[in-house]
Amino acid sequence: MAPRLKIAIVEQDEDRARLIVDGLSAAGDYDITVLGDATSLTRRLAAIDPDVVLIDIADPSRDALEMLSLASGARERPVAMFVDRSDDETTRAAIEAGLSAYVVDGLAPARIKPVMDAAIARFNMVSQMKSELDAVKSALAERKIVDRAKGLLMQARGISEDEAYTLLRRTAMGQGRKLADVAQALVTAAELLK
Amino acid sequence: MAPRLKIAIVEQDEDRARLIVDGLSAAGDYDITVLGDATSLTRRLAAIDPDVVLIDIADPSRDALEMLSLASGARERPVAMFVDRSDDETTRAAIEAGLSAYVVDGLAPARIKPVMDAAIARFNMVSQMKSELDAVKSALAERKIVDRAKGLLMQARGISEDEAYTLLRRTAMGQGRKLADVAQALVTAAELLK
Repeated sequence: MAPRLKIAIVEQDEDRARLIVDGLSAAGDYDITVLGDATSLTRRLAAIDPDVVLIDIADPSRDALEMLSLASGARERPVAMFVDRSDDETTRAAIEAGLSAYVVDGLAPARIKPVMDAAIARFNMVSQMKSELDAVKSALAERKIVDRAKGLLMQARGISEDEAYTLLRRTAMGQGRKLADVAQALVTAAELLK
Repeated sequence: MAPRLKIAIVEQDEDRARLIVDGLSAAGDYDITVLGDATSLTRRLAAIDPDVVLIDIADPSRDALEMLSLASGARERPVAMFVDRSDDETTRAAIEAGLSAYVVDGLAPARIKPVMDAAIARFNMVSQMKSELDAVKSALAERKIVDRAKGLLMQARGISEDEAYTLLRRTAMGQGRKLADVAQALVTAAELLK
């Protein structure tokens, strides 16, 4: 059996908090913690380590919205925010702050579960794109440094590209280090010695 | 003045279509086209070329949802879908199909404009990430081919990496071609000749 989803709810109003908890409890079996205010939010959420955060705030200012997104870790976990009203600038700011769902005037018990599902799916999709981007960026950076090192070896020893690569790889394996690290060391040394 | 936002609405039910149009008209000045069914959706949307598409469909099957996402160009433009109910599997499928907003049981006039704003903001953010990913991927691919070409020149002519690069670049400039294209031509030729 999959472990119960851990949900943190940030809600000042006790009645609305009960409404959210009831809506979720009717939809499934969850491990729910309600935080009555946003004081020390980052620290308290770190202690709970929730799978998803739901924030309900009537009418946030742009500053409050951005602070809440940051404090709730909207780039590290799925965070859904419910507000009563919004204009297009504020909506754009909410999306750009990394919120996985931003729901205007939509806090009804039956609607909370699908919003949460969508927030989780959205977060996972964006995370996957970010991982792919990080991987390609780091491949490019490693490639640059390895190629620089190969070039240095080819010129210094009059060997071919393949031979230079083999030499780098053998050195890395012999020292139990990463190819890119050996390449970086070689490039740094060559710059110091020239 | 900014041109009016062009909105295409896909809605079979005339009463609900009117509800959406009224909700939007109350919120702003838009260029709205209502499509009463999804027949030839891709072709008809291509003719309209809307800035955003809103689809209302009571209870789509997974297949219908994926077909509508594809036909409405959910990866090429912001598409928001309103449904009456959904389960977590279907919600996940909707997000993964590229829908910029997926709203369950939330079709109320006042809520359409913020959903549309969020869909546009979400689409732009994802597009930007995709462009960045494409740019880095293509930089990596170009780097690979240019480095291969440099290696060939270094070995064949006994020149340094910098000299090989300068030679490639001068050739590309002289022929009015891209560096990566000249590099590709060199690598192809070397493979044919070896």
